[in-house]
Amino acid sequence: MRFGVGVEYDGRRYCGWQRQVGSATIQQSIEQALSQVADAPIAIVTAGRTDAGVHASGQVFHFDTDVKRDAQAWLRGGNTFLPSDISLLWVRPVATEFHARFSALSRSYRYIVFNRPTRSALYTGRVSWEYRPLVAERMQRAARSLLGEHDFGAFRAAGCQAHSPIRTVHELTVGHSGNWYWFDVCANAFLQHMVRNIVGVLLAIGAGEKPNPWAHEVLKSRDRRCGGVTAPPDGLYLTTINYPEEFQLPCAAPACRFW
Amino acid sequence: MRFGVGVEYDGRRYCGWQRQVGSATIQQSIEQALSQVADAPIAIVTAGRTDAGVHASGQVFHFDTDVKRDAQAWLRGGNTFLPSDISLLWVRPVATEFHARFSALSRSYRYIVFNRPTRSALYTGRVSWEYRPLVAERMQRAARSLLGEHDFGAFRAAGCQAHSPIRTVHELTVGHSGNWYWFDVCANAFLQHMVRNIVGVLLAIGAGEKPNPWAHEVLKSRDRRCGGVTAPPDGLYLTTINYPEEFQLPCAAPACRFW
Repeated sequence: MRFGVGVEYDGRRYCGWQRQVGSATIQQSIEQALSQVADAPIAIVTAGRTDAGVHASGQVFHFDTDVKRDAQAWLRGGNTFLPSDISLLWVRPVATEFHARFSALSRSYRYIVFNRPTRSALYTGRVSWEYRPLVAERMQRAARSLLGEHDFGAFRAAGCQAHSPIRTVHELTVGHSGNWYWFDVCANAFLQHMVRNIVGVLLAIGAGEKPNPWAHEVLKSRDRRCGGVTAPPDGLYLTTINYPEEFQLPCAAPACRFW
Repeated sequence: MRFGVGVEYDGRRYCGWQRQVGSATIQQSIEQALSQVADAPIAIVTAGRTDAGVHASGQVFHFDTDVKRDAQAWLRGGNTFLPSDISLLWVRPVATEFHARFSALSRSYRYIVFNRPTRSALYTGRVSWEYRPLVAERMQRAARSLLGEHDFGAFRAAGCQAHSPIRTVHELTVGHSGNWYWFDVCANAFLQHMVRNIVGVLLAIGAGEKPNPWAHEVLKSRDRRCGGVTAPPDGLYLTTINYPEEFQLPCAAPACRFW
């Protein structure tokens, strides 16, 4: 039997999603908790791995098991064995055609920036801090040039293992309220560090350090060395994995916000 | 010379505001940081002590010093020496008539509750979790009976050292949005655990465990044993200290929110 699961986590204490020998990871913590519920080894398959320090409000994974437990038992039991910074949100039996990664139509991330001269004591590690005053309109204009299908090689980490750098960005919007700025990005898939590298470029433009057309120039270069600083993982949340309606998965939780 | 200072902090790591031998406290951390800036001992006087685990987005204190430093030097220097979960927001020279505690006209707190069947991984220690479904209207109706000047003895911790249990509650409103409920309370002053004990009573009413008039009955009893559970400190934020306009202190930062 196959189950689909929604999960949220605070990534601060973890070396990212993927199981690694000798390091605390999200995958390892969840597999351990579900194996305790099953009293048998459980392996999970995620929609998308997140990097060290990156959070999720709407991550999705699936697992197969012969162990007879209903969805509520997996949910409650899993949360009992999980640490307080990982929480299963829902568990559903799914068709075996469902695959957390390959069935996904698109992924959405939100990157949150706290913009104030003095650093935040209340959101440390949970948002990114920028002391330079930002202009949302400049960032929004620059963001438009990244929409659509492009070679995002200039926004890709050196260690990225994807075969192709071509990705389609469906949405890239900049929100602003008081001290808060946030970037909502939806794409068919993402290269490693792609959101953080896009945000790094937009922040330099928003702070007036780079001119507006720079985002497009970086994109055209297809060269990571032409890009900006990689924004820190602190402000990044995987918010939604979009699947075809036929799988009838629960609606994603509202994206994380602090304003 | 006297300085007024605004500060925010995440109270999780601390045994409350007040200096204690052998325990980490907010007061001690700030006095240590400012003393490093001054290169001389600095003692601070707060508007109101907060308990262990309680947070602040708008705490205020003052200190006196003969050391010649301008406000920006105290602000930047202080934040350099403070840990990341305490952040000075502003520093202003103030008249010697200003006293952080005795000049305060009123104090405001916000108590934040996350209401969902599954616990939150993203807000652990920063909000209070309630799995029972809540009804905002029930809590708001009950809250009205606590407005005004009353003997709040039934909402007072056993160890509370205040001379009189009489307090005037100017505001007690219940907000609701999605999974979030919050209580905004403004009073001339507060007894120990007063907000948390009020919230404990309102949550029992909001969850349907107690009838609506119970809040008023508890108040009338003036007996702590008639009250409810003390809500945990996790969700409590000291948001604003209100002073007479003549002191020209900066406006308080917006209250903490996550919805």
